[in-house]
Amino acid sequence: MEIYFDNSATTKPYDEVINEVCVSMKEFFGNPSSLHKLGVKSEKRLTESREYLASTISASKDEIYFTSSGSEANNLMLKGLLKPGHHLITTAFEHQSILKTCIELEEKGVEVTYLDVDENGMISLEDLRKSICKNTVLVSIMHVNNEIGSIQNIEEIGKLIKETSSRAKFHVDAVQSYGKLPIDVKKMNIDMLSVTAHKIHGPKGIGFCYLKKGLVLNSLIKGGSQEKGMRAGTENLPAIMGLQKAAEITISGRDENYNKAWALKGYMIEKLEGIKDIRINSPITNDYSPYILNVSFRGVRAETLLHLLESEDIYVSTGSACTSKTSVVHGSYVIKSLKLSNKDIESAIRFSFSGENTKEEIDKTIEVLQKSLMFLRRGK
Amino acid sequence: MEIYFDNSATTKPYDEVINEVCVSMKEFFGNPSSLHKLGVKSEKRLTESREYLASTISASKDEIYFTSSGSEANNLMLKGLLKPGHHLITTAFEHQSILKTCIELEEKGVEVTYLDVDENGMISLEDLRKSICKNTVLVSIMHVNNEIGSIQNIEEIGKLIKETSSRAKFHVDAVQSYGKLPIDVKKMNIDMLSVTAHKIHGPKGIGFCYLKKGLVLNSLIKGGSQEKGMRAGTENLPAIMGLQKAAEITISGRDENYNKAWALKGYMIEKLEGIKDIRINSPITNDYSPYILNVSFRGVRAETLLHLLESEDIYVSTGSACTSKTSVVHGSYVIKSLKLSNKDIESAIRFSFSGENTKEEIDKTIEVLQKSLMFLRRGK
Repeated sequence: MEIYFDNSATTKPYDEVINEVCVSMKEFFGNPSSLHKLGVKSEKRLTESREYLASTISASKDEIYFTSSGSEANNLMLKGLLKPGHHLITTAFEHQSILKTCIELEEKGVEVTYLDVDENGMISLEDLRKSICKNTVLVSIMHVNNEIGSIQNIEEIGKLIKETSSRAKFHVDAVQSYGKLPIDVKKMNIDMLSVTAHKIHGPKGIGFCYLKKGLVLNSLIKGGSQEKGMRAGTENLPAIMGLQKAAEITISGRDENYNKAWALKGYMIEKLEGIKDIRINSPITNDYSPYILNVSFRGVRAETLLHLLESEDIYVSTGSACTSKTSVVHGSYVIKSLKLSNKDIESAIRFSFSGENTKEEIDKTIEVLQKSLMFLRRGK
Repeated sequence: MEIYFDNSATTKPYDEVINEVCVSMKEFFGNPSSLHKLGVKSEKRLTESREYLASTISASKDEIYFTSSGSEANNLMLKGLLKPGHHLITTAFEHQSILKTCIELEEKGVEVTYLDVDENGMISLEDLRKSICKNTVLVSIMHVNNEIGSIQNIEEIGKLIKETSSRAKFHVDAVQSYGKLPIDVKKMNIDMLSVTAHKIHGPKGIGFCYLKKGLVLNSLIKGGSQEKGMRAGTENLPAIMGLQKAAEITISGRDENYNKAWALKGYMIEKLEGIKDIRINSPITNDYSPYILNVSFRGVRAETLLHLLESEDIYVSTGSACTSKTSVVHGSYVIKSLKLSNKDIESAIRFSFSGENTKEEIDKTIEVLQKSLMFLRRGK
């Protein structure tokens, strides 16, 4: 039995998604920019996907732009909008595609404020309010943190930004929340949003961003006039159709999967009570995604525990996949941002669930955890 | 019978490619950056693809970087290398992903020289030699032009650049030549190269660039440390495996397909002799790709002819797909760069072949062309 608890890194594509990609590669290979029938057929199908995806976040189809990934979407949103002299507010524990972009922007003369998060992984609305100034052009805050799953109150944040500034736009990195939590860009006052497909059982290599009507960005990839000139390159219709299919399945089962993940996470936390000297870094409350359970197993190195679990075909992670190779050496910057003790930082493991996981998998995992910890903590 | 003569816009993926993408989505869904077995399995498979693709251009695997498209590869190569004060030499008829990037670079203080091409679509080596100065950091020249198929002598150009400057690097946009003409980056003195999969019956949404060992670029998409930090974002292994499969099939059949395309193009030119008042913009000589036949049908508007052909299920183009919607209004900038008469510019049609086209398709096309031209030219 293989137990895959690394769904925040990437997910197994649904069979229906794989099928959709294949059908599209066969039936819709025409270039959507071509003037002939095969091109027009592809372009029409592309528009259908755009319309559907727009509807899932209460946007309109001309506000959706496809990209090759969530990382590209994040880079495009920030670099496309901000110019020297502008002020950007973000948090200390965003994804690297935001934080590394911020470093590049700082070098170019953009001022960046990094909001601290508390030990629960929440920003302070008061800090945010105080940080907004007349030069603030953008506030970029992730919806669900990818390592501990804390959920920011996007609706409150959106309201606060609009009350405090007529200039500041609001960007939300929704890579870990899209398809799992409801997103309504109008109700939440979101101006820009980033999404990727492969976190919701969709294909790799495709994502989209929402950009509120009227906003114009400098594009990252120049060339042809695809995506209204916002993103050059032949449209990847097979992946887009796969993304649509994944979104359809994910969103139609959203509440059911949410409840299932909640039950699984609750069950695992309950079972973890039998293991001593641990810290649950993402408790089971409405402030955290039920899809992510981050636990510190004090006194062991996370990487060592990861490999013991792996030897029994249980797949977890020590941090985000994107930073896995640095975080095993230095510890996760996300967990560090919570200002936990070193003991808790170096032993943190992320279990991330999907609607396809089961209680039996958790039973088995607890069993292997107990055995592994007994071995690792022997004599301590 | 559908006749697809728009293979320079995009190609129909091989069945083996579609199958490979599906298998990969099922079997290799693990994130190559994950530390556990599923991640390691994906990473190993990724390295295999990288090794194979490197071998096709006489490079080594650590010189290959995956991107989401040829356009992204072109943007990355130019923007990643050039800084204010640098000098770039390119041609007036490159793909838009080069030319629009050049405009952005000029705005940032990079000096750009656009070499003219003659009516045969060839640059002058003497012009190139004279343009190289002490600030020249890059020469970017496409191997095969996407609209008229003229082949630049890359080996001669590479030699000239290295003889003239110890500083200037050589970038080749090989989007239309990879898999069709031999490419040897060592022999040709190429420092950087851009390739895309969907022009060789591979998947959309994937391409790669070659970057000679020792060269370092500023990345376009910041974030995780994928592609040695040169291109953030979860690696698109299914598309990469599809690209490898497409390259394997294309390259193993390269000579056979080349000869087939040559015979087809020759046959079509022969048949076109029966149609008066035309101009063959890409004759059948070693200076042109046999995969591209560009013809001006004087006295008719290319778009009108395109739609008449389309009504009989024959798919061609008036220019590149990336610029199709502007070129129908203003005429193709590529054809204009050849300094042909307006009559020849506004009536130019591109037929682009693949190894799967047949003589019967050409017979049918000639028949429809004759009928259409008789109708369009009536009374003239």
